[in-house]
Amino acid sequence: MKETLWEYRYAQRMQSMKSSAIRELLEITANPEIISFGGGLPAPDVFPAERFREACQKILTETPASALQYGSTEGYIPLREMIARHTKRYGIFISASNVLITSGSQQALDIIGKVFINPGDRILVESPTYLGALQAWSSYGAEYITIGIDDDGMKIDELEDALRASPKFIYIQPNFHNPAGVTLSLERRYRLVELANQHGIPIIEDDPYGQLRYEGKHIQPITAIDGEIRKNNGPYSGNVIYLSTFSKVLAPGVRIGSIIGPQEVIHQMVKAKQGMDLHTSSFNQMLVYEVGKEGFIDQHVQLIRKIYKERRDIMLESLQEYMPKDVHWTHPLGGLFLWLTLPKNISTTGLFYKAIQEKVAFVPGKSFFPNENGDNTMRLNFSNASPENIVKGISRLGNCIKKEMTKS
Amino acid sequence: MKETLWEYRYAQRMQSMKSSAIRELLEITANPEIISFGGGLPAPDVFPAERFREACQKILTETPASALQYGSTEGYIPLREMIARHTKRYGIFISASNVLITSGSQQALDIIGKVFINPGDRILVESPTYLGALQAWSSYGAEYITIGIDDDGMKIDELEDALRASPKFIYIQPNFHNPAGVTLSLERRYRLVELANQHGIPIIEDDPYGQLRYEGKHIQPITAIDGEIRKNNGPYSGNVIYLSTFSKVLAPGVRIGSIIGPQEVIHQMVKAKQGMDLHTSSFNQMLVYEVGKEGFIDQHVQLIRKIYKERRDIMLESLQEYMPKDVHWTHPLGGLFLWLTLPKNISTTGLFYKAIQEKVAFVPGKSFFPNENGDNTMRLNFSNASPENIVKGISRLGNCIKKEMTKS
Repeated sequence: MKETLWEYRYAQRMQSMKSSAIRELLEITANPEIISFGGGLPAPDVFPAERFREACQKILTETPASALQYGSTEGYIPLREMIARHTKRYGIFISASNVLITSGSQQALDIIGKVFINPGDRILVESPTYLGALQAWSSYGAEYITIGIDDDGMKIDELEDALRASPKFIYIQPNFHNPAGVTLSLERRYRLVELANQHGIPIIEDDPYGQLRYEGKHIQPITAIDGEIRKNNGPYSGNVIYLSTFSKVLAPGVRIGSIIGPQEVIHQMVKAKQGMDLHTSSFNQMLVYEVGKEGFIDQHVQLIRKIYKERRDIMLESLQEYMPKDVHWTHPLGGLFLWLTLPKNISTTGLFYKAIQEKVAFVPGKSFFPNENGDNTMRLNFSNASPENIVKGISRLGNCIKKEMTKS
Repeated sequence: MKETLWEYRYAQRMQSMKSSAIRELLEITANPEIISFGGGLPAPDVFPAERFREACQKILTETPASALQYGSTEGYIPLREMIARHTKRYGIFISASNVLITSGSQQALDIIGKVFINPGDRILVESPTYLGALQAWSSYGAEYITIGIDDDGMKIDELEDALRASPKFIYIQPNFHNPAGVTLSLERRYRLVELANQHGIPIIEDDPYGQLRYEGKHIQPITAIDGEIRKNNGPYSGNVIYLSTFSKVLAPGVRIGSIIGPQEVIHQMVKAKQGMDLHTSSFNQMLVYEVGKEGFIDQHVQLIRKIYKERRDIMLESLQEYMPKDVHWTHPLGGLFLWLTLPKNISTTGLFYKAIQEKVAFVPGKSFFPNENGDNTMRLNFSNASPENIVKGISRLGNCIKKEMTKS
């Protein structure tokens, strides 16, 4: 291909920007013969299409002029109020002015990068951590301090040492971690808030799956614990920013997420978002409000939990049946993902191409590690494939792994 | 308000990020008693709500699973193909792989910033220029080289000198410029492409209003002229990136824009967009395709042209009637905006607050100048207010200006 003048002009940051392995895998696995545990896709069976259809009718009949027009950068007020009401139930006391609507949770991560990250800033993350956060922040020149995880989430006993390296902030997914599927215990949440406050380091709590719990009791959000400790009266004004999304409880295709934070922080984020996309689709915000209102989300989440719990259980059983000894996996209490650890000498990156031959796909674990470890790990999604395909796919995957282990 | 830990942690770039005066004005002018010529809002009367309603029904009945699911970062293929077919008619020869779908044209500007701008890079812009471009690029540390405009658009005779300062790229709105309403002549377009190629400087052609022409003949896009000169066979691979949007021909509330460029550039932009918002709403992309297909846009644009031409004419007549001598304005051949120049000693920033008292609003011109000139200018939008309100509003504005001129 002929080169154009543009190609000599890329910004330096493009060198540190890797294309998401997952996004590229999604393309390979678009082949319908392949059973994919790759993406983080909700089951299309659970999309409330009928209710979306009714909501479109209502909006485009009653208020087309505002649905199709430009809107405010902050977002559609009834939706912001609905989010504020909803999070109150979890002990996060806020008003609509603490809420910024984003174009999916990925944009929330990009906004955080734009508002807070100078080149060279160190961000404290779990290892492994959410790939999308690394993608967003590396483009702002972020560097990473990492802390390992175990079955109870981030290893809090390593936190104090890590905080001495003065990170700009801590990024954590406390519930049903992507990719690892683990959940931070209540005790560790209190300890995290305590240590963060002691060292003066703020926290980003990323919680896309919080409502998708299949067993055990809901655990207080980190934001709620921070509010409780500082006896926050009135709108939340503490040191935690809370990210959420409608992608997993309604539908990702409408791209509606939210940032909850102190009002002054939201104000700065609004300035940044103006230059990024002016505002999130007015129509989609009204749509999510109309679909989600009057308790529909609570009711719908029951259905999602039932279906995903069944799929998780089938995957756990299939792993038990088809995986060779020396393969270990997490037992997620919710969310969309399982995390597999193979013997140290097995590379899941290498395994991926062989698995594709056998018509099964996963995400090699390496890309979730900021520092390129974890080549013997993989992420498996259990929400998207049908129960029948989960059994079939795990059986295929088990065979691949067995072959690889015999060979090496 | 109590300060939080976050407030000591803003990135340096936040200092150069100004909140858009226009967005804040939009809030003031939400008061329905005020006749606003402020925003760049389409007339809600022209939104094809009925066709949007039908398209929603169709999509959510026939293909809800893909409309509500995650999609590819590049965008919905039928929509990209539709854009490719459409631009061919204007002499821009491309395929779908030259097209990236964006969350409105503002995101296109942000993507360009992320992919190309290093801190300190100089961008060559018109003065005045589109405020949203300055907002997007200043956050990447851009600096600006400016060239004035006259009734035929950018003063091309000043270009050669400006190019010697080695800008990273040239940014230009050739058709019905926002804010000034002027159009770059065909002769100047050829000269621009010629000089840019000679000096090896690429061009961003931003064309949100190109189809909204009310008089005179369509002029070839700069991208088409570049393709013609370099005898581009097959997909476009030249030095111009072309930005467009459905905001003005269908509806801004769905936030669908596009970038057209060489394939390798699109590939880099896809990497950047992954970290910014993963992808633009699948549902909205399918919606714009369904609404716009089978020639609907061409047909609908006829209606928009008719209504906006009438409003432009009424605004021109009213200006003639109500403005004092020594006030000058542009005669736009299309688009949404008129540009007023008052005597040098009148500040439109000061005038704004007085005008609000008289229940009429506009955008003070100053914020469109990268280097803070133009305090005696203002932008007037003629697409949003009804003909009746245009007459009333210009009469009020005329009175304000007369008072101010008498006083000074």
